[in-house]
Amino acid sequence: MEKKNAEIVIVGAGIGGVRAAQELAGKKGVHVTLIDRNNYQLFPPLLYQVSTATLATGEIAYPVRDFFRHVDNVDFRLGDVTGFDTENKVVQTNHGDVAYDELVIATGSTTNFFGNANVAKHAFPMKTMQEALDIRNQLISCLELADQEQDPARRKELLTFVCVGGGPTGVEEAGAISELIYKSMRSGYHHLDFSEVDIKLLEGTPRLLAMMPEKLSAETADLLRKKKVDVRLETMVTDYDGHTLTLKGGETIQTATVIWAAGVKASPVTAALGADYDRGGRIIVNKDLTVKGLPHVYAIGDSASFTEQPGARPLATVAPVAMKEGITCAQNILARLAGRDAEIFHYKDMGAMATIGRSSAVLSVGKIQAKGFLAWSAWLWVHLIRLAGTYANVSVALKWVLNYFNNARLGRIIVEH
Amino acid sequence: MEKKNAEIVIVGAGIGGVRAAQELAGKKGVHVTLIDRNNYQLFPPLLYQVSTATLATGEIAYPVRDFFRHVDNVDFRLGDVTGFDTENKVVQTNHGDVAYDELVIATGSTTNFFGNANVAKHAFPMKTMQEALDIRNQLISCLELADQEQDPARRKELLTFVCVGGGPTGVEEAGAISELIYKSMRSGYHHLDFSEVDIKLLEGTPRLLAMMPEKLSAETADLLRKKKVDVRLETMVTDYDGHTLTLKGGETIQTATVIWAAGVKASPVTAALGADYDRGGRIIVNKDLTVKGLPHVYAIGDSASFTEQPGARPLATVAPVAMKEGITCAQNILARLAGRDAEIFHYKDMGAMATIGRSSAVLSVGKIQAKGFLAWSAWLWVHLIRLAGTYANVSVALKWVLNYFNNARLGRIIVEH
Repeated sequence: MEKKNAEIVIVGAGIGGVRAAQELAGKKGVHVTLIDRNNYQLFPPLLYQVSTATLATGEIAYPVRDFFRHVDNVDFRLGDVTGFDTENKVVQTNHGDVAYDELVIATGSTTNFFGNANVAKHAFPMKTMQEALDIRNQLISCLELADQEQDPARRKELLTFVCVGGGPTGVEEAGAISELIYKSMRSGYHHLDFSEVDIKLLEGTPRLLAMMPEKLSAETADLLRKKKVDVRLETMVTDYDGHTLTLKGGETIQTATVIWAAGVKASPVTAALGADYDRGGRIIVNKDLTVKGLPHVYAIGDSASFTEQPGARPLATVAPVAMKEGITCAQNILARLAGRDAEIFHYKDMGAMATIGRSSAVLSVGKIQAKGFLAWSAWLWVHLIRLAGTYANVSVALKWVLNYFNNARLGRIIVEH
Repeated sequence: MEKKNAEIVIVGAGIGGVRAAQELAGKKGVHVTLIDRNNYQLFPPLLYQVSTATLATGEIAYPVRDFFRHVDNVDFRLGDVTGFDTENKVVQTNHGDVAYDELVIATGSTTNFFGNANVAKHAFPMKTMQEALDIRNQLISCLELADQEQDPARRKELLTFVCVGGGPTGVEEAGAISELIYKSMRSGYHHLDFSEVDIKLLEGTPRLLAMMPEKLSAETADLLRKKKVDVRLETMVTDYDGHTLTLKGGETIQTATVIWAAGVKASPVTAALGADYDRGGRIIVNKDLTVKGLPHVYAIGDSASFTEQPGARPLATVAPVAMKEGITCAQNILARLAGRDAEIFHYKDMGAMATIGRSSAVLSVGKIQAKGFLAWSAWLWVHLIRLAGTYANVSVALKWVLNYFNNARLGRIIVEH
């Protein structure tokens, strides 16, 4: 009699979940069900380029099923996970229950408004494809409305764009908005006074890009200021009503557009697991990536809080960590099924990079620090290589080349329901 | 004292409206205001490729302002036209009134459900970008839902796709759906039985592509049947409730997806003009493209009903007619302002073409009839050349080349609000 395959359910087809499934693809003795509410894997590091009309949606999203076209033991299910029954080893979805022998939680993260309901209601988050498209529509609509607005105060509000959060997302978004407006759109508006445009980047701590050496943080701020971005450090947001942004200390900024890139937290569904969580809602995992108290449940990527040494900070919620954890978690599942010991996860930091616009980026890898064209080229290559799909690679490379020589952006259109 | 510029208002930035504005661009003595509810010019002949995930939205839509970046006398206004006051020479919009000396109506057409409210409610039209995206989401969602559906009847309903209307849109859409499902998506679904997929094309008259010679109509039906499209001629739809499509004679088809390409009518706003209309709601125009009784109002493209000879059929609602009328109308405006006589519009039919899928198309130009690879190549070139924007040309050409060698489609993702 044939031995029944172990059923591995992976919740979340992001960078970690797909990588884990790829590691299990074609392996004997296991069958994988990959569940996601979207039919595509999103590549979040380039969402800001969709939001600023450089890239199309299909270029940073890859159909999940295409990863496993020729893989018989991996199946995809489109659905919303609503809960977990770890006693009976079942994942609950809007299309019924899915039983598992081993479960991998890879549900990623969502925007963290830190409990500020007003900001959550009026600011634009940028974690999903639709959110990136909403920002694109907003940026273009603001210029269109400003062009017809007679009231100077309202026009100023429409032309003020505030990014909150000085991490890579906020830095890249602010730089890209500057290029979109000053380089691509300016010549199309014959009567609009572009000196009324005001792009701001607000950061609560004393510097941008906390993971970078201080020197690069300072240079990033300089580069953004050269692009007419008003960089304001040690500036905390306390409230926003859709028109007035209030800062700690009482200062206010009139703006129709606040893009919130100030923090992330684990996707809410992880709370249904009943595990131990860190402050960001991430599941605290053991050295082998299993969840404390649930030996058949693993958590990876932005869902997991992994601490290398006692007292150290958990690993950052970035793509390389998710990818590496996806691999180790899959290997540990296979090892345990084969009666072998699980591996202890170890992560070697690969450094960090951020782009500030055409021809300019900052990069820090080990002892190497770079900025300018070289760092920018490195950024392009790394992101192009990580992006799933040969077609997307070719298409994105083409767009970047075209954009380099000319600032026209194909996607500068408003499509709304 | 300088003579005041004549104010030309063009309503609609489609193929005809933009062409008219381009003809007036840089001309002395005129200022143009181009109004549209969208900030882009749509290229409708390729909407079906957006709906079947081949092209991205930005590739068939060009920002209106970009046409007139370096043109001082043409301004764009984003807005909805709500009415016309021809007595006071004013166009009413949701952003206030716009005064004109000469008015051009170029508001295009919308889907004609011929008064069938049930069909209008449940079928998918395909005239706007959002409608094309809705169809794309629907096609992919149906396969995802079918993959999880245990009830065979409901699964069959999800896997039955009906296109209504045997004109170029219906023919091209049915062919493209066949390729999307059988060529691109099939390998991603390991458990779905693709023999359950049923793609139908229904046409009320005895043949497809009425503007083609009969031989090519018959060959088009053959080519579609080879692509597993069930072509049914002399088949009229009487009702649809979202599940059951009812045909004249009482036969029913269970289907979750009806794409309605059976007819168009003039955009409803033209009715506000108070002119003479044909059965399709199009404004009956004089030989010089002015509206009967309104010498300072012109209508062009799908808004206009132009009859070359008494008793003849009005010119077809196709891009080349709109383009040519845009040119003549602009020239007539300039001629009149200069005290010269207006020109009588004349249209020379350039023939017709339709594509049925990769490497196959039909073409009829004068005495030339062609089908197969040659016609397909001609179709590609003609559409590539007509498409606005060098970037879009390059990007679309690239996608078509990639698609030719491999059926993967970049845009096969579901993005919904």
